[in-house]
Amino acid sequence: MSEILFNRIALIGIGLIGSSIARDIRKLGLAREVVISTRSAETLKRAEELDLGTAYTTSAADAARDADLVIVSVPVGASEAVAQQIASSLKPGAIVTDVGSTKASVIAQMAPHMPEGVHFIPGHPLAGTEKSGPDAGFSGLFKGRWCIFTPLPDTDADALARLGGFWQALGSRVDEMDPQHHDKVLAIVSHLPHIIAYNIVGTADDLEAVTESEVIKYSASGFRDFTRLAASDPTMWRDVCLHNKDAILEMLARFSEDLAYLQRAIRWGEGDKLIELFSRTRAVRRSIVEAGQDVDVPDFGRHTLDK
Amino acid sequence: MSEILFNRIALIGIGLIGSSIARDIRKLGLAREVVISTRSAETLKRAEELDLGTAYTTSAADAARDADLVIVSVPVGASEAVAQQIASSLKPGAIVTDVGSTKASVIAQMAPHMPEGVHFIPGHPLAGTEKSGPDAGFSGLFKGRWCIFTPLPDTDADALARLGGFWQALGSRVDEMDPQHHDKVLAIVSHLPHIIAYNIVGTADDLEAVTESEVIKYSASGFRDFTRLAASDPTMWRDVCLHNKDAILEMLARFSEDLAYLQRAIRWGEGDKLIELFSRTRAVRRSIVEAGQDVDVPDFGRHTLDK
Repeated sequence: MSEILFNRIALIGIGLIGSSIARDIRKLGLAREVVISTRSAETLKRAEELDLGTAYTTSAADAARDADLVIVSVPVGASEAVAQQIASSLKPGAIVTDVGSTKASVIAQMAPHMPEGVHFIPGHPLAGTEKSGPDAGFSGLFKGRWCIFTPLPDTDADALARLGGFWQALGSRVDEMDPQHHDKVLAIVSHLPHIIAYNIVGTADDLEAVTESEVIKYSASGFRDFTRLAASDPTMWRDVCLHNKDAILEMLARFSEDLAYLQRAIRWGEGDKLIELFSRTRAVRRSIVEAGQDVDVPDFGRHTLDK
Repeated sequence: MSEILFNRIALIGIGLIGSSIARDIRKLGLAREVVISTRSAETLKRAEELDLGTAYTTSAADAARDADLVIVSVPVGASEAVAQQIASSLKPGAIVTDVGSTKASVIAQMAPHMPEGVHFIPGHPLAGTEKSGPDAGFSGLFKGRWCIFTPLPDTDADALARLGGFWQALGSRVDEMDPQHHDKVLAIVSHLPHIIAYNIVGTADDLEAVTESEVIKYSASGFRDFTRLAASDPTMWRDVCLHNKDAILEMLARFSEDLAYLQRAIRWGEGDKLIELFSRTRAVRRSIVEAGQDVDVPDFGRHTLDK
């Protein structure tokens, strides 16, 4: 049992991220009260069955009332609506944060609605799985992962430190970044990979010369690695695409330019260009493993080694 | 201990695939003699240290002499050179097979050199990891994976059955396909995914606005899934690109067309088109898991669930 960090925490949205936060708070005893709110009565009922909080309501405004910490975990496109709903219930000194994958857009949507005396600190825990909904969450999701804050210029240092302490209690490592830079970094490390994964799975699904059952049957030869990302929550990813448009379009343009170069090298049999790229990328993988950001077992550990 | 299936097996090439075959043969006792051949004296020495065979030679011709089964496991671009080297040593009735990821090109390179009375049966075990070299192999690599044969019209049914039995002894499921169809299927389930993975890792590596250390640090948010494929053997993949050019260029064209459509939907804020694609691809993932072709644990099991 850790110490109580906040008297009352309100969780607005109880999907994969919200419900993982809830499980950690409950397990670690980080708050006296955990009020859970979601628009869907069905999801709210499920959250209650899972015993994720101490109180449940479909009203975000009711949840936020008297909360010391409000964590908004909804698709980024719903940020403004939530900000409008909770604004008048927020008490002075409350910390409001979010977990959205885009930051400039969330700030533009939420900051104007935040009352004087409330600490709005945009955040983004870089954690998740391809599953969604309250059943998909689990305690420990944030362990060893980064949580990036993109504080506004007038952010209160004490509030930031308190919020950082909360994420650290969940096992996260915390970092700070300018919102625009966050959005560029995430465009390449997260948004582009998801879009590319969705796209290649779509391409394969549409082929006439190769049947869908063949694609599935032989997917272990590379294709299946992409399907994990392409199984992520559609609404969340629609919103990410629409709310980080500029950075994503920039990264897509570079990706396509590079792919055209690679395609031309294949067409003209320029093996040296292929070797150069294929060797360079191998080193990136090594660095990621060395940095502890991926497991060093072949094939993601899917094979049981049997030496 | 299984029964002895061949008196003498020659393994030409002793990388990830060749050395995994060697380990299985030795462990299961599938042959009296296992002759290992590779061009590099250093790799050959390592194979001997690992006790992968009963005899070792840098001469493919010597290895193939008196062999009942010859398995060629080299980058597909080296197939013709190997066929020329072994042709005059092959005894009548010998079975020659390969493990190459492209089949029309391997047939064009090898078939013309095969002497009368030798059974040449092109094969492709759909198995591997991102690691390469004799140390990367392991017993059990082929368990539960498909091995696709692309027999020529005059292939001897008994020889095909014997070779099928060998792969089944290694735990593979065997399948047959027309070589051209194989090359199309593999272009989408394996070659395109690898090329796309190499490309996106290259794009990320080249950015100025986002540093390489940021890409590595935050790679867990999606990017790292691609780096596994992009860490595969450069020479092998150069050869695949150059030897399955037509099918790969066709798949690349479709992928790019689909990506342009997706990019346009992002630019113009067409959320319904994004939702349609992102929902469809989720179903493909489900089918792959249901078909037993991927593990049903979130995040490839990287997280330890801690409920």
